[in-house]
Amino acid sequence: MKNRQVLISELPTEALTLEHYTMQDAEMPVPGEGEVLLRTILMSIDAANRAWMKGATYRAAVNAGDVMPTYSLCEVIESNSPRLTKGDVVAAESVWADYTTCNARQVQKLPDVRPLSNLMSVYGIPGKTAFHGLVNVGRPVAGETVLVSAAAGSVGVYVGQIAKALGCRVVGIAGGPEKCEWVVETLGFDACVDYRDPNMFKQLRAACPDGVDIYFDNVGGQVLETALFVMNEKGRVVCCGAISQYDTAAPTGPRNLPGLVVVKRLRMEGFIVMDFADQDAVALRALRTWVEAGQIIVLEDIVEGLENAPAALIGLLAGDNKGKRMVRVAPDPE
Amino acid sequence: MKNRQVLISELPTEALTLEHYTMQDAEMPVPGEGEVLLRTILMSIDAANRAWMKGATYRAAVNAGDVMPTYSLCEVIESNSPRLTKGDVVAAESVWADYTTCNARQVQKLPDVRPLSNLMSVYGIPGKTAFHGLVNVGRPVAGETVLVSAAAGSVGVYVGQIAKALGCRVVGIAGGPEKCEWVVETLGFDACVDYRDPNMFKQLRAACPDGVDIYFDNVGGQVLETALFVMNEKGRVVCCGAISQYDTAAPTGPRNLPGLVVVKRLRMEGFIVMDFADQDAVALRALRTWVEAGQIIVLEDIVEGLENAPAALIGLLAGDNKGKRMVRVAPDPE
Repeated sequence: MKNRQVLISELPTEALTLEHYTMQDAEMPVPGEGEVLLRTILMSIDAANRAWMKGATYRAAVNAGDVMPTYSLCEVIESNSPRLTKGDVVAAESVWADYTTCNARQVQKLPDVRPLSNLMSVYGIPGKTAFHGLVNVGRPVAGETVLVSAAAGSVGVYVGQIAKALGCRVVGIAGGPEKCEWVVETLGFDACVDYRDPNMFKQLRAACPDGVDIYFDNVGGQVLETALFVMNEKGRVVCCGAISQYDTAAPTGPRNLPGLVVVKRLRMEGFIVMDFADQDAVALRALRTWVEAGQIIVLEDIVEGLENAPAALIGLLAGDNKGKRMVRVAPDPE
Repeated sequence: MKNRQVLISELPTEALTLEHYTMQDAEMPVPGEGEVLLRTILMSIDAANRAWMKGATYRAAVNAGDVMPTYSLCEVIESNSPRLTKGDVVAAESVWADYTTCNARQVQKLPDVRPLSNLMSVYGIPGKTAFHGLVNVGRPVAGETVLVSAAAGSVGVYVGQIAKALGCRVVGIAGGPEKCEWVVETLGFDACVDYRDPNMFKQLRAACPDGVDIYFDNVGGQVLETALFVMNEKGRVVCCGAISQYDTAAPTGPRNLPGLVVVKRLRMEGFIVMDFADQDAVALRALRTWVEAGQIIVLEDIVEGLENAPAALIGLLAGDNKGKRMVRVAPDPE
């Protein structure tokens, strides 16, 4: 058994590059009393990883010299706790490494779902984020128009599909004509607008002839600024993330805020998926129902190999992924 | 009887100046069928007047050559409608002029309150805006901290006093040390921070040791950007106006939006006083109760003379007023 880790050698001040990471061989960690030894199976690659490098958010800031933190699915290899036994599969706040140790109280034992990757996509944080943000914050009603940015992203693919299942008209925003076509053809959105198109505003107007009732915002910045102009009165902006702002030294705010929020009586509301943990069971049952009915298809984008984690994150920030991106470090246990 | 009007001779592209207005003698208007002839008594001077000159908002844009629109209190001089009789006092969407005509259906007959100016301050749009925005949008609870910008402004003076009456800790933001002192001494706020102070952020932190639960935003821009940093999780931003953005060619958005809205799970919500018209009676009863109990004092800033309306508006945009600014064109009828 060999252990490898990926460290942050230097914090980025502008765009993240491969030079900000170093891979190194490391000691095999030894679990203490109450701890477990974990083998990493899948690591979640998220835009939020980059936001963590900018300072404290809902978690402490990440620093140079740290092994890169991650949300991961792991197999218990050795347990010094009565709470878990060898072979259990758990979700953990761990790091980019083959093996880690963790207090058994701080991991969450997972249900027996195969492939395990589904627990990181539709039945994991992306699916639950899409459900809670759209349903509990946005409160859509059949017939309304829902607009979602990063439509091909891990959360966006489910926001749109859930909104369709609920009877809404759904318009996506994504980067490049090929991705926009994929969003319409594969995911069944009613339309998808390319944010790189200089005529984005016109395209958006054309794609939303009745205006927008809910804008599910994953990107912030210029796209949010443009979206506010097509909102209907009493519209809702679900603030889920701001990926356009994470990988830059010069974040820009929408210039029409708060002006249009007043004029159009908008509600903008931020949320974190954990805020709705008490309603996770409801969300998961709904997601399973739609998946089984064929109304939601599961989208995953799996990059092979721990050594490819930095490139996987950098690519995600550039919008390379379609659906939930994760890195496979070891195969699913039998 | 002589009639005068103030026209917008040219729309401002940057800051509003006296040169953008022209005063002229005009014909005495003649009311048609169903119309009334109105003598202007008081004209409301509002930051929103400047926003109207920037394009369509919740009302149509104002153009060069128009007589400047205003919300006013008027006396009916002549009536061609069974709905109103000579001597009635009404609220009207009228213009900067001694006399105007109006369809009798488009004015609102007012209750018999003296002085009439109270119908433009505590029992008018400022008082109702403060009540509906704070109570129905912000939803304060005793013990919470309420922050309000333009604290000495027409709405701000009531937001703070209502919040105090409801048992909240109240912190104002105003321009200059003299005004801040007035807000604390005269209005009874717990503290007031000068937004012109280069250490505004530190002052705000010091004035809000428990953070801010509700920020009632009248100004937008840099002050909003700063306020977001002191908000507590699940805080509410009541978006009432953006006076810092109206009188400029280069509006700026808060750079930390939507980032902090997500991280802190904030709710930002815009409103217009008319949205809550069905609850005006409740608001007015509450305001009257607090005024009679001495918990709310009435603040008015009355400028004499139609010819001084342009200077009154320009001064308001520079923050000269304390409490509701209006222009008196004629004395209260007996």
